[in-house]
Amino acid sequence: MTRLDLQDVLLICKRNNVFSPSCHLYGGLPGILDYGPIGAEIKRHLRRAWWEDVVYGDFSVHGIEAALLTPVALHEHSGFLGANYDKFGVFETAMKDEVGELKPCHLRVTTAQHSFANFDNIVAAHSPTLPFGIAQIGKAFRNEKDVTSFPVRMREFEQMELQYFVAKESANTWHEFWLQERLKWWEKQGISLNNLVIDDVPADELAHYSSKTYDINYKLKDNSFFEIEGIANRGDFDCGSHSSIQESLTLDSTVGKNTKSTALMAIKESENALYTAPYAIEPAAGVDRGLMAILLESFRIEQSSAKQRVVLSIRPHLAAFKACLYIPNNEDAAAISLARKIKIDIQKTAKGKIAIQIGGDPETIFSYHDEVGTPIIITLNDQLSSKDLIKARDRDTANTTQMTIQELHKRIQTLYM
Amino acid sequence: MTRLDLQDVLLICKRNNVFSPSCHLYGGLPGILDYGPIGAEIKRHLRRAWWEDVVYGDFSVHGIEAALLTPVALHEHSGFLGANYDKFGVFETAMKDEVGELKPCHLRVTTAQHSFANFDNIVAAHSPTLPFGIAQIGKAFRNEKDVTSFPVRMREFEQMELQYFVAKESANTWHEFWLQERLKWWEKQGISLNNLVIDDVPADELAHYSSKTYDINYKLKDNSFFEIEGIANRGDFDCGSHSSIQESLTLDSTVGKNTKSTALMAIKESENALYTAPYAIEPAAGVDRGLMAILLESFRIEQSSAKQRVVLSIRPHLAAFKACLYIPNNEDAAAISLARKIKIDIQKTAKGKIAIQIGGDPETIFSYHDEVGTPIIITLNDQLSSKDLIKARDRDTANTTQMTIQELHKRIQTLYM
Repeated sequence: MTRLDLQDVLLICKRNNVFSPSCHLYGGLPGILDYGPIGAEIKRHLRRAWWEDVVYGDFSVHGIEAALLTPVALHEHSGFLGANYDKFGVFETAMKDEVGELKPCHLRVTTAQHSFANFDNIVAAHSPTLPFGIAQIGKAFRNEKDVTSFPVRMREFEQMELQYFVAKESANTWHEFWLQERLKWWEKQGISLNNLVIDDVPADELAHYSSKTYDINYKLKDNSFFEIEGIANRGDFDCGSHSSIQESLTLDSTVGKNTKSTALMAIKESENALYTAPYAIEPAAGVDRGLMAILLESFRIEQSSAKQRVVLSIRPHLAAFKACLYIPNNEDAAAISLARKIKIDIQKTAKGKIAIQIGGDPETIFSYHDEVGTPIIITLNDQLSSKDLIKARDRDTANTTQMTIQELHKRIQTLYM
Repeated sequence: MTRLDLQDVLLICKRNNVFSPSCHLYGGLPGILDYGPIGAEIKRHLRRAWWEDVVYGDFSVHGIEAALLTPVALHEHSGFLGANYDKFGVFETAMKDEVGELKPCHLRVTTAQHSFANFDNIVAAHSPTLPFGIAQIGKAFRNEKDVTSFPVRMREFEQMELQYFVAKESANTWHEFWLQERLKWWEKQGISLNNLVIDDVPADELAHYSSKTYDINYKLKDNSFFEIEGIANRGDFDCGSHSSIQESLTLDSTVGKNTKSTALMAIKESENALYTAPYAIEPAAGVDRGLMAILLESFRIEQSSAKQRVVLSIRPHLAAFKACLYIPNNEDAAAISLARKIKIDIQKTAKGKIAIQIGGDPETIFSYHDEVGTPIIITLNDQLSSKDLIKARDRDTANTTQMTIQELHKRIQTLYM
């Protein structure tokens, strides 16, 4: 199935309010987008898919939520000041101190630093042994020079990021492991591996903290591409750089002396061992870019005779509407009441929004729901519901099947459990 | 059951890393908190409970996700500049314009304004009729003078907020309706109505946009209280204030002339009717404050003979761990493998994290999971699992029952579906 061009996808997104320039009524701000109902739901489901895989999986990962306002010292010891300050486009703001004076603080440029800043909290409360992870989904901000009008190069963006702490000796193995895990995950989100290009970033292009990084790039129909995830081996740079008593650690990374931190970001592998700063493997994915890749991957146009059908063939677990319940006759009280009951019954299984559409032209309704990716449209009428029957239309085939309500429940289970 | 004092709750939260001062290693920032694994999970579930109720319910509510960086003009026409500028504690930052010059912008002080800024996007793409809503969960920022070290008075906080657009004539009725709906919702989150105090805010204390506001306050054990939700009748202030051609609308609210906006935030109730700016009913709840109220409400201490049991008796749908699978013997490969299978099977039904605990002292494990609110601890061993049996310990009663794996599945369904 051929994919669509970027411009066609953007047109479809625009007419369905998937995303739009934020505060357009006041001219907007460059690189800042809002998500309408369809985009917001897909993002919610994408984040959940990541969190369930990474945090609820079998990898001893602790999921946290950290703040966006950041002390300057955290950025300083992350290497984001000096020459990197402009490169990372740090947003500055100011916070009142105890006596009401405004003191500079920053908006975080990455989620990563706050995961490191929680390292000792996690160690103290949860006594993890290596390997273990700290995961976070949240916003970050960069005053980028060039921005896009779609969710790729944005100044306010959202990351899904894991810091996986491992012993130095196993760091390379875990780096390869996470690359494979993440590729599998993207595939489960409906992205064909054929459209993912893995870039082993050349040594002279690596960020200051990384000894090796794989970029996962999404390749568009025209062979242009954008990064959707970076998987870096950060070594012991961060645990070392944010530690107070660096002399007690034998660090491999070059870090600046830290007189401000009160934390020792190291663990003992056994009772008599010395404290060591673990290595961090960082799979860091973009929520916005992930959404954009999924949209580019999933839209298709079917041309049959004179008619054209635009279909967002997105994986059901990511679909904005899990189902649409359609009652053609808006005076059909029995069918309307049955629809409300079915909605409540299937919503928990489907884990998402169920639309109810009372009246309206079926062609218009089918065409809208194809375009926003609703996997199933369920038609109810008086005649059918008196026999406990409904009609179910499948998004991808456009075929309609008559089935019992019990069969519908099984169908919903198959789609969403 | 008696509740605990604030200080006792804070101590328990601290030792379990529910929340903590952000970037404590660098001295932190006043009024800024991070959430550890337990706090982050409870917040996730609380947000989901709100979204499912408000956005997936039967009220034609469109859920969006808008940006945090805000053009000054949006705040200006929301009445947050001038005398209100300091009152709302606007955080200022700056963004590069097209030629690379830094131009002032703000961090939003409320989610509300971005819901209004999306009004015409929603109308254009989804053609809603009154009443309909625009909902959002997201962060907002205020440089508050006095802050708390727990999630109540924070400078970076999260709101769950609905703007419900109604015809002027029915605004009072909808205002009362949403007050009742929201009270029912808080009750479903485990907050006793006895501990909620509704404050009909006196006219001279109302915010500049409101004609009438109900505050829902959570009352602590010592009868002090904090607001967890405000439900305002904003009238036509916002749709009026952000509209460009205000003369064409007969506004009830007093608004400043708007020469910057390009939007007409009004709808026609029928084809031949005039455009009118709808009234907005705003139930705006705090995620952080909601979490704090739920913690204060749900912790209890059971004293039996010499032993003391601390229990977070939180509603199962909000619990951080949905279950703990405990295998006492860490060499019991069969039980460990069965536990991994059960985890995968029940995780989808439970919609949350399942802990696996291999080895360790049962008393320590039970006591930890009581304290973080895990509703059920499932013990597996070789002898039991060969007969397809497990032992299930209930958090609230501390009673253990032997049951089949099939019965366990039913129990999980009862708890979480």
